[in-house]
Amino acid sequence: MNHPLPPWRSPIARALHRNRSLAYARYVQLATVDASHRPENRTMVFRGWLDPVSQLKFVTDIRSTKAINLLAGASDWAEVCWYFPKTREQFRLSGTLTLIAADTTTSHHKARQEAWQQMSDAGRVQFAWETPGADRSADPAALNPPQPDPNQPLDTFCLLLLEAVAVTHLELRGEPQSCYLYELLDGEWQTRSINP
Amino acid sequence: MNHPLPPWRSPIARALHRNRSLAYARYVQLATVDASHRPENRTMVFRGWLDPVSQLKFVTDIRSTKAINLLAGASDWAEVCWYFPKTREQFRLSGTLTLIAADTTTSHHKARQEAWQQMSDAGRVQFAWETPGADRSADPAALNPPQPDPNQPLDTFCLLLLEAVAVTHLELRGEPQSCYLYELLDGEWQTRSINP
Repeated sequence: MNHPLPPWRSPIARALHRNRSLAYARYVQLATVDASHRPENRTMVFRGWLDPVSQLKFVTDIRSTKAINLLAGASDWAEVCWYFPKTREQFRLSGTLTLIAADTTTSHHKARQEAWQQMSDAGRVQFAWETPGADRSADPAALNPPQPDPNQPLDTFCLLLLEAVAVTHLELRGEPQSCYLYELLDGEWQTRSINP
Repeated sequence: MNHPLPPWRSPIARALHRNRSLAYARYVQLATVDASHRPENRTMVFRGWLDPVSQLKFVTDIRSTKAINLLAGASDWAEVCWYFPKTREQFRLSGTLTLIAADTTTSHHKARQEAWQQMSDAGRVQFAWETPGADRSADPAALNPPQPDPNQPLDTFCLLLLEAVAVTHLELRGEPQSCYLYELLDGEWQTRSINP
């Protein structure tokens, strides 16, 4: 099956390149809704693309509220807000999330394994910490567990995929500003220039 | 009526101070939900506090989707995600939004006026641009209107207030990381140390 890159991939690749001196240019804010339809919003590290389908890769703990909400059947809709400070541009990517947990029976098993292997030691060990959001453990060892196997993901480790169906690209630089809307309509990406 | 500062005000003030060399440390991501309960997420400029009640001030165009959603009766719940790059800390503030438009009959009339006066010329003129999100106007003058009166807000100009009822403060620096949850319970702020 042919998977041409969606037209918003190259503007994001360009922004990533131009902002590469800032580690936090790979940080995005991911908005989801909980079971009561209230919004949640947190910073996530962009972990690259799942190709050839151009899904955004993130990682999360199965004990996090976003994973719990998804597993409990809350809406899988999400919007990522990605601001690039150096070039002063913003991408908003809206679409649906898929959680790939340890028990996955899908072909994403391998992508989860690879995401684990690509993490730093400091990133991996967080998945061995005590339950996120619970009262702080009095035991100092709770946040200092042994380093997990770099090849075998812990059961708490999930890959989280965002499949975008609409992307807005706002460029604050330039007089006047420019803004593009990319929409997936009948399986084809359509591009429009809109007012900022 | 006595309004002591909520306990999360001073950590935010400290973060703002320590990150003051970065203009974009005043940028936050605001998540809301639309009428279909889908999340929306965009970068907003923090415009200071509405005191003495410690509400966060933002400005928005009455033609923006967030204003349209609020006016149409969509949920007023929101979560702000505020990441401070230099000190590597994140605040998540969840609560409810109030839109203060030109027709307000509340005491916030003056706060709206002051917010307009505190904007830059470049910020103010955006409220005279053509409808945000509509197809880009072919007329180059549409994004180049005359500069509005700096003392008289345009009718499109709204003040947007967030009243927080829960705040999470995550400090990524430090071994181990620390995380605090502030919750408004029966009118009193309670603070807990939680696992990150």
